[in-house]
Amino acid sequence: MHPTTAGEVSESTDSVIDMVSVDAPFLRACRGEPHDRVPVWFMRQAGRSLPEYKAIRGTGSIITAIRTPDLATEITLQPVRRYGTDAAILYSDIVTPIEAIGFGVDVAPGIGPVVEKPFRSASDLERIRPLDPEADTPYVLETVRNLVRELGDVPLIGFAGAPFTVASYLVEGRPSRTYENTKRLMYTDPELWFALLDRLADLALASLHSQVANGASAVQLFDSWAGALSPSDYVRYVQPASQKVLEGIASTGVPRIHFGVNTGELLTHMRDAGADVMGIDWRVDLDDARKRLGDRTPLQGNLDPTAVLAGADVAIERTRDVLRRADGHRGHIFNLGHGVLPDTDPEVLEQVVAVVHAEGKVR
Amino acid sequence: MHPTTAGEVSESTDSVIDMVSVDAPFLRACRGEPHDRVPVWFMRQAGRSLPEYKAIRGTGSIITAIRTPDLATEITLQPVRRYGTDAAILYSDIVTPIEAIGFGVDVAPGIGPVVEKPFRSASDLERIRPLDPEADTPYVLETVRNLVRELGDVPLIGFAGAPFTVASYLVEGRPSRTYENTKRLMYTDPELWFALLDRLADLALASLHSQVANGASAVQLFDSWAGALSPSDYVRYVQPASQKVLEGIASTGVPRIHFGVNTGELLTHMRDAGADVMGIDWRVDLDDARKRLGDRTPLQGNLDPTAVLAGADVAIERTRDVLRRADGHRGHIFNLGHGVLPDTDPEVLEQVVAVVHAEGKVR
Repeated sequence: MHPTTAGEVSESTDSVIDMVSVDAPFLRACRGEPHDRVPVWFMRQAGRSLPEYKAIRGTGSIITAIRTPDLATEITLQPVRRYGTDAAILYSDIVTPIEAIGFGVDVAPGIGPVVEKPFRSASDLERIRPLDPEADTPYVLETVRNLVRELGDVPLIGFAGAPFTVASYLVEGRPSRTYENTKRLMYTDPELWFALLDRLADLALASLHSQVANGASAVQLFDSWAGALSPSDYVRYVQPASQKVLEGIASTGVPRIHFGVNTGELLTHMRDAGADVMGIDWRVDLDDARKRLGDRTPLQGNLDPTAVLAGADVAIERTRDVLRRADGHRGHIFNLGHGVLPDTDPEVLEQVVAVVHAEGKVR
Repeated sequence: MHPTTAGEVSESTDSVIDMVSVDAPFLRACRGEPHDRVPVWFMRQAGRSLPEYKAIRGTGSIITAIRTPDLATEITLQPVRRYGTDAAILYSDIVTPIEAIGFGVDVAPGIGPVVEKPFRSASDLERIRPLDPEADTPYVLETVRNLVRELGDVPLIGFAGAPFTVASYLVEGRPSRTYENTKRLMYTDPELWFALLDRLADLALASLHSQVANGASAVQLFDSWAGALSPSDYVRYVQPASQKVLEGIASTGVPRIHFGVNTGELLTHMRDAGADVMGIDWRVDLDDARKRLGDRTPLQGNLDPTAVLAGADVAIERTRDVLRRADGHRGHIFNLGHGVLPDTDPEVLEQVVAVVHAEGKVR
């Protein structure tokens, strides 16, 4: 499939992995190599905001959609087709592996992950057995294989939740503003905390390995809520487990993107955990992030998702500002600073993509 | 009242303002002058977490308690009495002025400020008339006068909500994670946005002036949610209104503290809005904040409020870490990085105060 051409997905039975060009602009930017246009994709580009998604999604839990490869494949393809993004991101959820091993998690519409019986003590560790991706998440792997076949030369990004962020859902039981139960566990029972994070690191790692083995060309580790931590807590309690995941996947050779919100203070630590590319939220200007991380770390971001809600004029003005701050650096992948908001007008995002492709220059 | 002595509040009919010593450690630290102990107070030290508060508070809206000077006075005094803090903070709310002029705001328990009819268009501007503190909030001023009389040499901190944060409640109608309606207004109708912020600046300024005129010795401007903004948006859309408030109160000579969460990227801009003292949340290590803001800006903070939930050992270890990073600088006021959490054990906070007073050294 050619991402710049809107229209039907072409049928193909070729070996999928060979079709993905290592020269795709997205992958070259992830490696900081010369390429000819600023690549762009959006976190949460699939789903919620798209009318074509609402038309096929039906009701019921997102977990059910993830367990239905044809549906998950189509949902992943929709934004690539509409926007001509330079990468697809697997339609899945960071709780997919933990749900698959039977921990008792659901994703409640309008709320997020909710856990039936939160993680509270050492006996809960037994509820986190190792993931066997082929047996536990065959539907994910089928979706990945479908996608790689359909996407042609558009790279597919696989992903996993980082141990801290997944732990925060397991411990709090639902999205939190303070993460107080999570931090209390971390501070008062570090042995149990590290055991929990180690199991979640293994889970993320097994899932990422299986996604890459089935054709994903890059991976993103979402530590969405790590920004709740002080830098010293991050380094002490969280970085080792994230490092286990990022270093564990290094042997595959695919680019490793690392992202969280409110993580301005943590950028160097998150990079040092073993990321090739750092995702930047909108709270740090991109030129400032470049100064902090130096010239050799590719950056992904960082348009404020609310700017897209404000209509095309505002979105375009701010897109240009991001491009200006990126200053044509080879290591820049255009993205939002967090996920696409549900009320986003897809036509505005189409214009953002058009501006990035038309005006973004790579030095 | 002597804050280091637990017990009854002494009666006094002396002129109140003269009783507050300009040599109180808290005020000297706010001015970066030499003093003999590290001053400490806690945001939200009054209320929620205290059994003596629960015993007298009753049910009903916090607004009702604020409108009852004897009750608001007692609630403000309780933590000073229990902890021996070096300052009291008025028991009130950032929505008190806007509620007083009849905008239709309540503070819902467990949620926060909720607005009956959110601010959506230019016609809503008329709903924000100027505040006449004596006529609109006589109960606040009576509480302030009561307190200054009761507190003796313990300074009282008055406060107001910064224009952006109050605007976010008026526009969203309730606490938000994304502030999307607020930002949409800001981006798409800057004229209306600036008119709104200007009125809210006048409101905050009138309220602060009346609190100081009645005896408050310092003020804190809470821009709690400014951290949702990129640095360039903060400078363009928010800083001018906050500057109007901070510069407008400068003539009184009282120290002006400026605080928000997630504001690591905004610290210099918030200081440059006219703050004497910068409040720091726990996400920025205090020694790092010192580097960013230089030697001449006193800092307030910044123990993670969740550390206090983890018991005395953890809280004390982390209190020592904050003191170590403050490095005996004259311009340090010990505080949490955000408000005291409802589940906090007051006995742990007592120990934090004891450690700060016993071990904190001022160079």
